[in-house]
Amino acid sequence: MKRAELTEKILDVKREKDLSWKAIAEEIGGYSQIFITTALLGNMPLPKPQAEKAAALFGLSASETKMLSEIPMRAEETQMPPQDPTLYRFYEAMLVFGPALKETLHEEFGDGIMSAIDFVLSMDRKEDPAGDRVVITMNGKFLPYKYHEPRDGAQASGAHPR
Amino acid sequence: MKRAELTEKILDVKREKDLSWKAIAEEIGGYSQIFITTALLGNMPLPKPQAEKAAALFGLSASETKMLSEIPMRAEETQMPPQDPTLYRFYEAMLVFGPALKETLHEEFGDGIMSAIDFVLSMDRKEDPAGDRVVITMNGKFLPYKYHEPRDGAQASGAHPR
Amino acid sequence: MKRAELTEKILDVKREKDLSWKAIAEEIGGYSQIFITTALLGNMPLPKPQAEKAAALFGLSASETKMLSEIPMRAEETQMPPQDPTLYRFYEAMLVFGPALKETLHEEFGDGIMSAIDFVLSMDRKEDPAGDRVVITMNGKFLPYKYHEPRDGAQASGAHPR
Amino acid sequence: MKRAELTEKILDVKREKDLSWKAIAEEIGGYSQIFITTALLGNMPLPKPQAEKAAALFGLSASETKMLSEIPMRAEETQMPPQDPTLYRFYEAMLVFGPALKETLHEEFGDGIMSAIDFVLSMDRKEDPAGDRVVITMNGKFLPYKYHEPRDGAQASGAHPR
Amino acid sequence: MKRAELTEKILDVKREKDLSWKAIAEEIGGYSQIFITTALLGNMPLPKPQAEKAAALFGLSASETKMLSEIPMRAEETQMPPQDPTLYRFYEAMLVFGPALKETLHEEFGDGIMSAIDFVLSMDRKEDPAGDRVVITMNGKFLPYKYHEPRDGAQASGAHPR
Amino acid sequence: MKRAELTEKILDVKREKDLSWKAIAEEIGGYSQIFITTALLGNMPLPKPQAEKAAALFGLSASETKMLSEIPMRAEETQMPPQDPTLYRFYEAMLVFGPALKETLHEEFGDGIMSAIDFVLSMDRKEDPAGDRVVITMNGKFLPYKYHEPRDGAQASGAHPR
Amino acid sequence: MKRAELTEKILDVKREKDLSWKAIAEEIGGYSQIFITTALLGNMPLPKPQAEKAAALFGLSASETKMLSEIPMRAEETQMPPQDPTLYRFYEAMLVFGPALKETLHEEFGDGIMSAIDFVLSMDRKEDPAGDRVVITMNGKFLPYKYHEPRDGAQASGAHPR
Amino acid sequence: MKRAELTEKILDVKREKDLSWKAIAEEIGGYSQIFITTALLGNMPLPKPQAEKAAALFGLSASETKMLSEIPMRAEETQMPPQDPTLYRFYEAMLVFGPALKETLHEEFGDGIMSAIDFVLSMDRKEDPAGDRVVITMNGKFLPYKYHEPRDGAQASGAHPR
Amino acid sequence: MKRAELTEKILDVKREKDLSWKAIAEEIGGYSQIFITTALLGNMPLPKPQAEKAAALFGLSASETKMLSEIPMRAEETQMPPQDPTLYRFYEAMLVFGPALKETLHEEFGDGIMSAIDFVLSMDRKEDPAGDRVVITMNGKFLPYKYHEPRDGAQASGAHPR
Amino acid sequence: MKRAELTEKILDVKREKDLSWKAIAEEIGGYSQIFITTALLGNMPLPKPQAEKAAALFGLSASETKMLSEIPMRAEETQMPPQDPTLYRFYEAMLVFGPALKETLHEEFGDGIMSAIDFVLSMDRKEDPAGDRVVITMNGKFLPYKYHEPRDGAQASGAHPR
Repeated sequence: MKRAELTEKILDVKREKDLSWKAIAEEIGGYSQIFITTALLGNMPLPKPQAEKAAALFGLSASETKMLSEIPMRAEETQMPPQDPTLYRFYEAMLVFGPALKETLHEEFGDGIMSAIDFVLSMDRKEDPAGDRVVITMNGKFLPYKYHEPRDGAQASGAHPR
Repeated sequence: MKRAELTEKILDVKREKDLSWKAIAEEIGGYSQIFITTALLGNMPLPKPQAEKAAALFGLSASETKMLSEIPMRAEETQMPPQDPTLYRFYEAMLVFGPALKETLHEEFGDGIMSAIDFVLSMDRKEDPAGDRVVITMNGKFLPYKYHEPRDGAQASGAHPR
Repeated sequence: MKRAELTEKILDVKREKDLSWKAIAEEIGGYSQIFITTALLGNMPLPKPQAEKAAALFGLSASETKMLSEIPMRAEETQMPPQDPTLYRFYEAMLVFGPALKETLHEEFGDGIMSAIDFVLSMDRKEDPAGDRVVITMNGKFLPYKYHEPRDGAQASGAHPR
Repeated sequence: MKRAELTEKILDVKREKDLSWKAIAEEIGGYSQIFITTALLGNMPLPKPQAEKAAALFGLSASETKMLSEIPMRAEETQMPPQDPTLYRFYEAMLVFGPALKETLHEEFGDGIMSAIDFVLSMDRKEDPAGDRVVITMNGKFLPYKYHEPRDGAQASGAHPR
Repeated sequence: MKRAELTEKILDVKREKDLSWKAIAEEIGGYSQIFITTALLGNMPLPKPQAEKAAALFGLSASETKMLSEIPMRAEETQMPPQDPTLYRFYEAMLVFGPALKETLHEEFGDGIMSAIDFVLSMDRKEDPAGDRVVITMNGKFLPYKYHEPRDGAQASGAHPR
Repeated sequence: MKRAELTEKILDVKREKDLSWKAIAEEIGGYSQIFITTALLGNMPLPKPQAEKAAALFGLSASETKMLSEIPMRAEETQMPPQDPTLYRFYEAMLVFGPALKETLHEEFGDGIMSAIDFVLSMDRKEDPAGDRVVITMNGKFLPYKYHEPRDGAQASGAHPR
Repeated sequence: MKRAELTEKILDVKREKDLSWKAIAEEIGGYSQIFITTALLGNMPLPKPQAEKAAALFGLSASETKMLSEIPMRAEETQMPPQDPTLYRFYEAMLVFGPALKETLHEEFGDGIMSAIDFVLSMDRKEDPAGDRVVITMNGKFLPYKYHEPRDGAQASGAHPR
Repeated sequence: MKRAELTEKILDVKREKDLSWKAIAEEIGGYSQIFITTALLGNMPLPKPQAEKAAALFGLSASETKMLSEIPMRAEETQMPPQDPTLYRFYEAMLVFGPALKETLHEEFGDGIMSAIDFVLSMDRKEDPAGDRVVITMNGKFLPYKYHEPRDGAQASGAHPR
Repeated sequence: MKRAELTEKILDVKREKDLSWKAIAEEIGGYSQIFITTALLGNMPLPKPQAEKAAALFGLSASETKMLSEIPMRAEETQMPPQDPTLYRFYEAMLVFGPALKETLHEEFGDGIMSAIDFVLSMDRKEDPAGDRVVITMNGKFLPYKYHEPRDGAQASGAHPR
Repeated sequence: MKRAELTEKILDVKREKDLSWKAIAEEIGGYSQIFITTALLGNMPLPKPQAEKAAALFGLSASETKMLSEIPMRAEETQMPPQDPTLYRFYEAMLVFGPALKETLHEEFGDGIMSAIDFVLSMDRKEDPAGDRVVITMNGKFLPYKYHEPRDGAQASGAHPR
């Protein structure tokens, strides 16, 4: 069984039972809707208690339930960049603003990155008479680049693991 | 003169005068630091009053000043995906969470996209004893997909522009 | 079930019943032929009343009918650029005239884009003794780029969401 | 001298003289603004009378003037797909609607293509209280595919040129 | 049913019945062997009378027969460039001689292209004591590029469709 | 000196002296216009007597003249596929008809290729009241694939060079 | 039936019957082991007498046997470059030594290529106390490039087929 | 000034002064040789005290010295995968062992990654009578994936930033 | 049977029997866990005694057991670079440090490579109060590049195999 | 100075002095012509005594001479696959015969590769009345894959460096 086949089955049941992601997330509980959706689509593992609730909801076999909790090969079949317009806009924002984000991040925090692992992401709706707005918040720990210190007594060139 | 050459000149002056982006943005004024940095790096035009301030700051010629206000060919030489680790993380977050963002957006707002044009983006620092965090907020207007209505009396197949 | 499999089924029934897209669009109604064709080929969702008519026409199951109304992953398996000559010409026109369209758009409307979301498209036949002509009209709302204004009291660099 | 260098010079003079494409097109005359812009950007040759007017306007040498009238290597350094958002939308519209355009074209005209050579393209502004709209019209001659007829007395397999 | 599956079936029957393309083309009749082979391989539609003869020859169902006459998505799964040595040579000839063909075409005919739509192609055997030669003749209508003329009274920039 | 720089110089002189390829080929003599053009554009070496005539015509230095006779790195900077419409059509014809050409070639000649080395190519104009036609003839020696015969007394697996 | 499926079947039987390529080549006979292996893997046709022996060995149907003798679409699904380390080394050797081979070939033989069609290839084991060596010998006919001679009386530019 | 030009200058001085990386690293001091080499090649910033020592060693201007301390666009012009055989082997090891490393990492540490930012790397020589060995040690902090917890009172779907 | 299908089956049984790679490696024995995992995932052959133990553990047929010991087409379907974040970090480390590793390797060992064939790789956990660390050790034999010596009496250009 | 610029200079002098690679290799001496040509083209370092002879022959500066002996970034700007027909044939031979070479190598030598590092390559001319033949011999040491043995007392999964 491939993880993509399990996703296809989940989407089939979701369609047949006329479930929303919101209802699914409430039923499974414990994590945000974005996280649970990401997991059911195959880019995050679902912790066991949640996987069991998902199994009940989607009628999964024991093996399928277990697969839901396995750490997946993330983004395995994803196009880069994606051609779907909704997805593409997220990348386009980074094409345009990414270089300035890098400069700003370095000036404010120093050399390093915003972690995409110790990272949470939320989406909110902001009402606006000129048209409601989508607000996506990316919140990642700043990770400073480690600079290698010299290694005493090392014969060859090399960095010193602390 | 190519826009990339002007960026190179601006970065040379920034280095020689030991300027920070923050100081540059305050000096130029009128727009956020992210916007001004994006413009100086060549992905946004700088409005004329700001371009004149930038000209004074960076010692630009009249022609260079004018180029700063031209609408640029955005992201022209940008790698997709980028190999710089700081930039790559922004794209990786979208590889992992993009599909769930799409599902959530559609469930909450219906069929459409978060605009990357009527769009503002900010970066903040959030202090945290476990390590400060980078918070990036993307705020774009929701744009619903327009579905074509039939065109009366049209001979051929086609959609009706309202 | 994958959306591509549903498209294949629809094309099989269309072939067996000897239906034209024009007849299909008239039967389903409510939207232009281009829109309905796009939806049946998997790049637009079909609104529910239309999906029910499509279900009757193509003999679809309840689940298939529901899938027709789901917001799809658009252009998922499309080649860029396409190798089919009919499709390639549309892209070639943009290769040749795209840069001038960008300059003209900016000079006439300012900085921004022609929306591909608030967008309708039609195709007409124009009779011509030297050979009839295909006329494709793209009609999209102009969306001006939003420039970030400064955020008062903001500690870090950033743009201000209105 | 490369054609791209000539384009760069033209854009430099345009900037220094503060010319609009509209003014340039009126000064050069004889062809639409889209055509003249396309030619000055290097994707079309400029007919000689127009090239001479362009030479006067931009201060070109005899050799540069002549190059303006040479048939260029079109779209030579163009990215496919482009990353500039304004350009990208033109391609995205084709990603979403291209397959339906192909079906509609074939049903209405038969097997063939919309020529991108015997082709004119215009852009108009359509006022709209909800936001003005960009209207792009592509108008190309329908070219039917030629099917080979058998060749009498031909020894090998082959098609018969009429 | 996908067009590629129909091609696979046709090749299976051709193998089982020990048919040559020459015999197939004679049996189906009406068009050159190159055209009929191209159609059976999925890059051209087969006109109905020919499709019926093909159906009898290959034992096709009504739906398969109809599919043979549908205008296909041409070259959909073709590699560019191909890795098969026989196919690669055709592309290599264009890599080496293409630029000179373009120059020669423009000098002889003016600005335009050799149509690949109003186009016939034949292959012949030319006996030669030093080794027989393959002669491929490409015969396409010259299509002159259309240059946009100005549009009277047009408000926006644009080209005039005749 | 790079070969591309020499091509650029030759095109500059051609432009300044207002030469046609036809006149150049007649002046240089000895080979077809297609061959001489291909050589001057950098995809073929020009034999020494012709290189000397070219040197006189274009005012080349001794070193440049010698470079003209060197066997070049062919098609070094050529795009595959090309985006210029005139060039693209040559490749498109092969996308559509290549598979049938391969089948026909094998049925008529057996396993092998049409050589692109022992190969000549010509372009002719064919007058036609419906529009003149471009006729390109590719003429290459058929090269049969060599099948390895066993090697007597060979220890390892392997083919026997005759 | 696809050729790749036949290869998969052959490899299944080879595994079940515990056959070596050496034993297979001896059983089938008439050609070198490299050739027979290449044919069974789908990159060469197997001559009929050999195909019949292969059919007996692998238990093939009449149609499968025939397919073994068909001229295949060579290297159809091969990665370029390959990621398997054993295969990659062959390409890497060409990356490093290819340019010098080209120079040496041209200096020794003149303008032309080493044919990959009139070509045999062998692999031998060379014992060496420092570790046995793999010796691969590529033996291809030198093919001189043909330079076009002028065509008398030809109106248009063109090369003369001899 | 581009960072790549500074690297070229540093390599020119290194060559002229006949310096080894080991001697350079000892002269500059404070960090491992791998780190200093990485910084001088443009993939790490050199802290200021070290940049000043580098400036003295390589005869850099004040602006060049400052650039050495700027956080660079890392790996900007690097090929992926590289074609240099020494570099390629590092990637090949990951092609072969990467999947098992992922499985092992997850089983031992749970869901997460080995950081490439809080990361040190060393190279050592290990003497071996059968041929000395290169030992590369990658040492990165394990970063566990953060799973989003639900956000109280949040209206829309979303993850809760802690 | 394809190797990827066997991997899928092994992962299915591993899931159903709730096995860890550690337990699997202990049960199969004789080789490191990394090696056994690599082999079961299809990038290394499993020696026969181990393959038999694996067969018992996973319930494999004789043919599947044999396939486990076959030398595979390594990394056949692997993305380069991978999009899974855990895998990507390994490549990113090489993007950043690869050039310095090459310089250091050459300075310490001379011209050559770290073998990826005579190569072992281990992963260890290093406890650290600031967060445990992943330590990956790559250990490969240094292979010096062989420089060709002249070949006596050789007529043509060439290198002398010792 | 870039290595490519030095190659360009060497080729300029070679052209001006009318030198053959054979004469250059004899003058420089000590290594095969293939090796010396590869080094002068930038894919191998030239040992110092040979670099000094090359310096005298080509009139190189001290710094250029030193660069000739530096270990280069091999194949840095090489196309993969190459479009030059002479180079392409070497890759095509591997596309067709590579899979069988892999099978034969493994059956004869076991699991491993033919080294491309401990590797020599020669080219010879073989006279043949039917046309002389190019014979390229690749001679590389067989390198067996190392299989990891278990590591005693190791806590984590891992392979044991011997």
